[in-house]
Amino acid sequence: MIRLHHCVSARSFRPLWLLEELGLPYELVMHAFPPRVHDEAFLEINPLGTVPALFDGEVAMTESAAICQYLASRLPEAGLEVAPGEPAYGDYLNFLHFGEATLTFPQTLVLRYGQFEPPERRQPQVVEDYARWCLSRLRALEPRLEHEPFLCAGRFTAADVSVGYALLLASHVGLSERFKPAVSAYWERLQRRPAFRRALAVEREAALAQGVSPEPAMAAGRSF
Amino acid sequence: MIRLHHCVSARSFRPLWLLEELGLPYELVMHAFPPRVHDEAFLEINPLGTVPALFDGEVAMTESAAICQYLASRLPEAGLEVAPGEPAYGDYLNFLHFGEATLTFPQTLVLRYGQFEPPERRQPQVVEDYARWCLSRLRALEPRLEHEPFLCAGRFTAADVSVGYALLLASHVGLSERFKPAVSAYWERLQRRPAFRRALAVEREAALAQGVSPEPAMAAGRSF
Repeated sequence: MIRLHHCVSARSFRPLWLLEELGLPYELVMHAFPPRVHDEAFLEINPLGTVPALFDGEVAMTESAAICQYLASRLPEAGLEVAPGEPAYGDYLNFLHFGEATLTFPQTLVLRYGQFEPPERRQPQVVEDYARWCLSRLRALEPRLEHEPFLCAGRFTAADVSVGYALLLASHVGLSERFKPAVSAYWERLQRRPAFRRALAVEREAALAQGVSPEPAMAAGRSF
Repeated sequence: MIRLHHCVSARSFRPLWLLEELGLPYELVMHAFPPRVHDEAFLEINPLGTVPALFDGEVAMTESAAICQYLASRLPEAGLEVAPGEPAYGDYLNFLHFGEATLTFPQTLVLRYGQFEPPERRQPQVVEDYARWCLSRLRALEPRLEHEPFLCAGRFTAADVSVGYALLLASHVGLSERFKPAVSAYWERLQRRPAFRRALAVEREAALAQGVSPEPAMAAGRSF
């Protein structure tokens, strides 16, 4: 049985969403954010102290976009991976990484120095630098999404989960109002997916059942 | 023919190194860093304005760790990829992403706010926050590298190129003196690889031949 450690709206939403897309059985373990602060024992589960932490038999993984590729390859008949023989394989790998390294990391700076740090350590210049950075990179998707429903291969894949999470985070951070039209329409399409909606419902129910706040840490002004 | 756009010591060193490991033929196009500032026409080649930009027939890619996986899969007989059927597949994907998203991005903050920004925009607090952040994540590799020569699968793979570049960058940024013993020994092993040394020689020769400074932008105090 796959076990996923998750915080509401954190990067671990990627594997949660993908598990719902795939219909694979899994166990969801909820933590308050950030987990290493609220539960020191979590460091024995994942020495990095971060979510996601995913366990599948002998496999242990901590990088959310890598987990998406791993899970998609576990059930190839679902078509959520792009195989090396397909023409879109390069695009697929590129967008898996782009969603995290290029679109998500800059937003963690916006959050950290805009919300999570105590007032005397906040850095408005860094917040603005990386909000602009993220939005400028996002604009590169515009021409493609004007003509295509999804990022690559003409179908929904794990790469859309990687980038889609960056858009979910952007909506929490307050950047989604600055999306261009094609990215905005794409984000609407992703939110209408049944598996996306199930993932949101599952994390809420699991949080309540496990005594964790169902609200995202973003905008709650928590200390980092 | 594969064409790689590269700046000395930038993330595009990853594909350059891997191409040398694989022995694939390629064309190397050198740019001064950052390329979009020195050559506006580069935006027509890569609208993001970043390196790497790699072209291989119809394939166009910009994410360096994704390119590593792509190139490794192009020549599977070289053994630089870990296939989905191998037990280390999850580790392989995880370290490919870990090298960039977890180890490299924080260092770009150290560089940006410590060296590249003009003095009035430098942020010593951010530099220290992310230097510590990177080193703490790197310590997680220590137990594994005390017993294994490489990150996964008992052999050198594209995942070592992803993480190895982060160590190269750390040595430019001035963080390598703070490596723990097993990571330090691993970094020594990587630097002794013939393909790593060839990649360094090739970028230097290509820079001189194409009229670009062969020195890394780091520590040169260039504006961003």
